[in-house]
Amino acid sequence: MAAINVTIWNEYLHEVQESAIREVYPTGIHGALADGLGVNADFNIRTATLEEPSHGLPDDVIESTDVMLWWGHMGHHLVDNKVVEKVRQQVLGGMGLIVLHSGHYSKIFTRLMGTNCSLMWREANEKERLWNLEPSHPIMAGIGQYIELPAEEMYGERFDIPTPDELLMVSWFQGGEVFRSCATWRRGHGRVVYFRPGHEEYPTYRNPDILQVLANACRWSARTVNIKTNDSPNVAALEPVPGATDRAVKAAQAGSGSVGT
Amino acid sequence: MAAINVTIWNEYLHEVQESAIREVYPTGIHGALADGLGVNADFNIRTATLEEPSHGLPDDVIESTDVMLWWGHMGHHLVDNKVVEKVRQQVLGGMGLIVLHSGHYSKIFTRLMGTNCSLMWREANEKERLWNLEPSHPIMAGIGQYIELPAEEMYGERFDIPTPDELLMVSWFQGGEVFRSCATWRRGHGRVVYFRPGHEEYPTYRNPDILQVLANACRWSARTVNIKTNDSPNVAALEPVPGATDRAVKAAQAGSGSVGT
Amino acid sequence: MAAINVTIWNEYLHEVQESAIREVYPTGIHGALADGLGVNADFNIRTATLEEPSHGLPDDVIESTDVMLWWGHMGHHLVDNKVVEKVRQQVLGGMGLIVLHSGHYSKIFTRLMGTNCSLMWREANEKERLWNLEPSHPIMAGIGQYIELPAEEMYGERFDIPTPDELLMVSWFQGGEVFRSCATWRRGHGRVVYFRPGHEEYPTYRNPDILQVLANACRWSARTVNIKTNDSPNVAALEPVPGATDRAVKAAQAGSGSVGT
Amino acid sequence: MAAINVTIWNEYLHEVQESAIREVYPTGIHGALADGLGVNADFNIRTATLEEPSHGLPDDVIESTDVMLWWGHMGHHLVDNKVVEKVRQQVLGGMGLIVLHSGHYSKIFTRLMGTNCSLMWREANEKERLWNLEPSHPIMAGIGQYIELPAEEMYGERFDIPTPDELLMVSWFQGGEVFRSCATWRRGHGRVVYFRPGHEEYPTYRNPDILQVLANACRWSARTVNIKTNDSPNVAALEPVPGATDRAVKAAQAGSGSVGT
Repeated sequence: MAAINVTIWNEYLHEVQESAIREVYPTGIHGALADGLGVNADFNIRTATLEEPSHGLPDDVIESTDVMLWWGHMGHHLVDNKVVEKVRQQVLGGMGLIVLHSGHYSKIFTRLMGTNCSLMWREANEKERLWNLEPSHPIMAGIGQYIELPAEEMYGERFDIPTPDELLMVSWFQGGEVFRSCATWRRGHGRVVYFRPGHEEYPTYRNPDILQVLANACRWSARTVNIKTNDSPNVAALEPVPGATDRAVKAAQAGSGSVGT
Repeated sequence: MAAINVTIWNEYLHEVQESAIREVYPTGIHGALADGLGVNADFNIRTATLEEPSHGLPDDVIESTDVMLWWGHMGHHLVDNKVVEKVRQQVLGGMGLIVLHSGHYSKIFTRLMGTNCSLMWREANEKERLWNLEPSHPIMAGIGQYIELPAEEMYGERFDIPTPDELLMVSWFQGGEVFRSCATWRRGHGRVVYFRPGHEEYPTYRNPDILQVLANACRWSARTVNIKTNDSPNVAALEPVPGATDRAVKAAQAGSGSVGT
Repeated sequence: MAAINVTIWNEYLHEVQESAIREVYPTGIHGALADGLGVNADFNIRTATLEEPSHGLPDDVIESTDVMLWWGHMGHHLVDNKVVEKVRQQVLGGMGLIVLHSGHYSKIFTRLMGTNCSLMWREANEKERLWNLEPSHPIMAGIGQYIELPAEEMYGERFDIPTPDELLMVSWFQGGEVFRSCATWRRGHGRVVYFRPGHEEYPTYRNPDILQVLANACRWSARTVNIKTNDSPNVAALEPVPGATDRAVKAAQAGSGSVGT
Repeated sequence: MAAINVTIWNEYLHEVQESAIREVYPTGIHGALADGLGVNADFNIRTATLEEPSHGLPDDVIESTDVMLWWGHMGHHLVDNKVVEKVRQQVLGGMGLIVLHSGHYSKIFTRLMGTNCSLMWREANEKERLWNLEPSHPIMAGIGQYIELPAEEMYGERFDIPTPDELLMVSWFQGGEVFRSCATWRRGHGRVVYFRPGHEEYPTYRNPDILQVLANACRWSARTVNIKTNDSPNVAALEPVPGATDRAVKAAQAGSGSVGT
């Protein structure tokens, strides 16, 4: 089995700017994820951050990625639209994308969903219990009936997302809310996973169950094809069609797409 | 029952620039649709076109629309991004949107779907038969086993769309292809319908069955709520949560959303 | 608008056998529902119970019903399979079905879902908060952000159901669980709604919000077509097909379905 | 990687009773499938037929199967309900099931779907072209834009199935119809695939593309868990719930499920 090229993108601002966060994630959230996922021998891991040139995502990195993880929060607006569009086209062409926690508001996620991806939130150091709705799904492999996190930020419904293709986990929060915490969508030829936990104040990304879900999600969404979808070809008929119009014949002869679709 | 405010948007370029198309639709595609849908006493119909100021869609028109129909083709790139975003927010807030034929490539549709919405196509004057998969769906009311169109442009799979919430019609084409021709998606609080037929060279929008589907789709997708989804509120707990962090308490006191989501 | 024929089916055993339950529902759960839904002028309401002949569901009642509500619990196994199959064929032909609370284990629901419809449960007099995920759905009309019930039986995930076509409410329980509480599925030409609340010990069916959801669900799922789906017709080709086999020609001549499908 | 235990079930009546069919499949449809799938080193293949004791499906065979293929037609009614129920519980517990062609009317498929699974049909020796809607899905691995079969039985919509979780192929037929030819559903913890082609008069199960789809489907749906879903446990609260009723406390003390769900 070929190695899976995993690229972990993190905006890496909280950890730099706030000492309390740096204590939780001394090498950044991307560093913790690289450590935690790095134990999997089938992963070839790279990291990238906002402040690097091209946000650490030059064309050759994007194009050689099988699955990308995305953590962002305060710097969503600083991400270059051109990079976002390149990442989006890779997803549509077959790359996997795993959007983490506050990445719900990232350009790449909202652009792929088409909705605002808004929600309710609260920082109250409260308990979260993520219920496993589909234990037979590959992303839930090795996960029991639920994952309990002693302290997390709360995200509450209504989460403004399109109906997921698959809803894998629903969170219960101590303060009284629920949330669709792990969900998948097919977009183009790519698979998108949203996974809720991971507020910067908590060591969530060192929790073994959380890392298991992420490793599973990497394998499940990793690219298997590379098929561009940004073209609408003018095609010949496969069966006899008498009586094409002059306009159509001329267009076909000219090889022109200008009159079509 | 209150009237439904229907706004028919048409780019209105083919009909102006090409005499052959003008013969098919002397008052424009929007004119034909306004005539065909205007027989429904519960519809209050307006039309809008590309060349009008704000493309005929100033704020008060967008905001007072219950359902919008969208036909575009050669001028997709000429539509102002600001207008598109206003229309999109209205959909997410509850407005219905019915995207017609070559509108598959419109900014509003691709932005709401998140995908490229590409397809295969051919202009060969060929027969299309749209099979009715869900005769009990309100959009199919009054439609039989299939609709047959003697001549249409061909659109073939793979249509690069997210999995529809509901797939209502699949087309058979004489030349050998199939296409998901009528499909629905919920986006935010709004309902989006895509309906394939309607190439500018053919009088498709005077076909009674096609007009029936469109009238049904207007009623089914018409706005019932007006709820903005572009905000993520910071909320208080509904149940006791001991031990909120200092950071969270300070943020709540300041009424600030800056640390959250 | 024609009246909607609503049939409320209740096994009516708890109320007869247990005085504590009879105090909550003196005229039975069906009586309370008939009272609560009866304020809607567009409903023509009938009730039926297990101990009546044919469980109160002779053919003419089933066939003239637009939407049926089903509450059962301890007597699921006492319901005649023949009646269940008649009800199922009506659903597949276009009748609406609203399955209530412990009806998750009814023959009609499990037969339509194909799964075991199992769940976790607890009777602990605890708080339930049903979060509204789709305020623009007709079944949620008039319902706010959530419905709070001070005391209910707990139902917890995993609920063994097929992925719902639409997930409208998710419950939060005081004891730590979550549950998909309001969901819909299309089966044949009929629409099926499952709505969780309604344990016999609590006056849930007098709660105005609960009654609003049920009235909405009746209107949304009420029959609009009557199309049998229990036959697979042998059909002639719509387009020329040269070279049918002798076997096929003979079958078609004989009008026989015996070699086909 | 552990071998996948594949059980191919075939009613094996046409091949025995009709010489013309026996010429197409001298060792039976199950024999042809065993040959075609047997080239995959990761498959451990067994076959079973209607006339064998327990239809070739004694408990130990059912329970040690990871994925079962099912071809049936004229003998659906001869299959023992008890065997069907055992197979169904295995699917709900995690076994894969691939239903072939006329198996649409089998007890196991209709029981898992909940619908009648009816369709239109015609035997006219006509061309079928199966369009690939999701080339990135594991079941479509290695399959191009479409599969063309020179002669097959026609199946036409409306196919009375629940909305598929995933729609992978749609067929075009020469005679003018379309059909959802490859689709998947999750039921319990198991995955169900329906794949249309395979009329007994044609050598469809020796077509390399058809065999590729079936091999892919075996791998995709093969069991990964074994979790029974036919029980609804009474569970203790995970969080403090003051004030459980006497009735609930007594039930919990008695370990009784009789009052619950």
